[in-house]
Amino acid sequence: MIEFSVTVLGSGSAIPTSKQNPSSQLVTYNNNRYLIDCGEGTQMQMIKHKVRHSHLDNVFISHLHGDHFYGLIGLLNSFHLMRREKPLHLFAPKDLEKVIEVHLEVSNTTLYYPLIFHPLEDYDDQPLLDNDQIKISCFPLKHSIPVWGFLFKENELKRRLDKTFVEKYSPDFQQMADIKNGADFLSPDGELLSNESITLPPKPARSFAYCSDTAYLQSTGTYAKGVDLLYHESTFDNGMEALAKKTLHSTAVDAARVAKEAGAGKLMLGHYSARFQEDLNRLLNEAKEVFPNSILSREGETYFL
Amino acid sequence: MIEFSVTVLGSGSAIPTSKQNPSSQLVTYNNNRYLIDCGEGTQMQMIKHKVRHSHLDNVFISHLHGDHFYGLIGLLNSFHLMRREKPLHLFAPKDLEKVIEVHLEVSNTTLYYPLIFHPLEDYDDQPLLDNDQIKISCFPLKHSIPVWGFLFKENELKRRLDKTFVEKYSPDFQQMADIKNGADFLSPDGELLSNESITLPPKPARSFAYCSDTAYLQSTGTYAKGVDLLYHESTFDNGMEALAKKTLHSTAVDAARVAKEAGAGKLMLGHYSARFQEDLNRLLNEAKEVFPNSILSREGETYFL
Repeated sequence: MIEFSVTVLGSGSAIPTSKQNPSSQLVTYNNNRYLIDCGEGTQMQMIKHKVRHSHLDNVFISHLHGDHFYGLIGLLNSFHLMRREKPLHLFAPKDLEKVIEVHLEVSNTTLYYPLIFHPLEDYDDQPLLDNDQIKISCFPLKHSIPVWGFLFKENELKRRLDKTFVEKYSPDFQQMADIKNGADFLSPDGELLSNESITLPPKPARSFAYCSDTAYLQSTGTYAKGVDLLYHESTFDNGMEALAKKTLHSTAVDAARVAKEAGAGKLMLGHYSARFQEDLNRLLNEAKEVFPNSILSREGETYFL
Repeated sequence: MIEFSVTVLGSGSAIPTSKQNPSSQLVTYNNNRYLIDCGEGTQMQMIKHKVRHSHLDNVFISHLHGDHFYGLIGLLNSFHLMRREKPLHLFAPKDLEKVIEVHLEVSNTTLYYPLIFHPLEDYDDQPLLDNDQIKISCFPLKHSIPVWGFLFKENELKRRLDKTFVEKYSPDFQQMADIKNGADFLSPDGELLSNESITLPPKPARSFAYCSDTAYLQSTGTYAKGVDLLYHESTFDNGMEALAKKTLHSTAVDAARVAKEAGAGKLMLGHYSARFQEDLNRLLNEAKEVFPNSILSREGETYFL
């Protein structure tokens, strides 16, 4: 099966701790890597967890609070020093371009590679990226400044060869490839077997949604409808609804409600307030009450879809 | 003795590695802390090495290459989130103010505490800071963009009580304090003992110089004349003089020459190129050939003057 996974590089919120780095996740799809958010120290986390960035060509920044992008300029600069030549696409709120420009200006740097900036404000219904493997789009969340969630959706997969057909007719490699691409099959005794009769329906396309930072939002359940894995921030616990409302963050239960409303396969929590670093299970248990298939995001761990 | 020390938070150069963080050092003098340079991840290094920042009111940035300041905005932001109220003084090349302003603007942040910016360009012979304990000044180094070194010089210390006098006359606490401040002493039998006769000369004032990034410069030996501890970058080894010249960095031998010319007490190396992370002793041995009292800076270690 094609790899579709999420590696957590930072699971904490605004103030880093000895156990929690600021937000960053790396999505891998079939050897291509997509970085979502890039808090301070993300490049060190990549080194620590042996994540290679040779196939990283697209970076997505959800919003312009520091714990989601302060590590970006360091990463861009390291790519420059490593003489990267491939273009890097950056999808982010428009003001980030100013920040990058000022940084390059004061250090008198012209990047060695093309940095192609895509303001998230310019995208509405159209996808950010749609290649032959995956479609990535953004949707609005709700925080004290503009913020977007990201949806990664695998393209429709091909029909699969029916094992009984393969055993009976032993098609060669080229024939198998043709059948996967929709061809019918002419049997040795001259019978034309239709593609549908010798293949099984494709596995359902997998999808992942990333939601941070945000207050509870009913619309997220619609945007993330049916995702296999939903990452939703859960900064606070049950006792802290008032603070969550005030700061436009979510509790673990808010995250679980969204997962339930989306009909998600699995909910992954994160963006934990520093006060929970010794007791994340408290957040997990609260989420499970509402949405049993909840898990904690842990730095350095990879979660497969 | 009053503590005067340097804690190394980052010892690497432009590209971080699993063993080396970008430049940052923390000077402690009598419980006051002074941060020099602040590469990405410095606040995490402070947490990791249990360095408290409660007495950190002054930050010094040598130049605007990313590995010397990309961690600053994160530190400033954390102070803000922790509701720091005390002013923070920032001594840095003038353009850094623009970088900070853009960051605050795009995240719609007004810092909770006063950040007082002091452009290094405005200082010439006058010290950056001169309190009742220490005098801090800057001096020019030579790199591809403007860069300054920093000199920390302890104020003249007071004369010390002569032990034989104390044993003979057992002065009380107040009398001892007065004598340290220059008072004479009236002995029980009516004899006036001059201050000079009952005290010893003060210990020599200690000093520390920080030099990064820079090509070899003869003038540094003058600015750092007689320092107890000289930190001088040593990015490259003996075989790489040409690259050092081209990039306006120093070899370990360049650093040792400066230490020798300054008549420094001790030389501390650092800003190691990533290629030496497994064999720093090579740099150390080269430096020792020219200046025997050389040491390596190691992250998390504190060096006392």
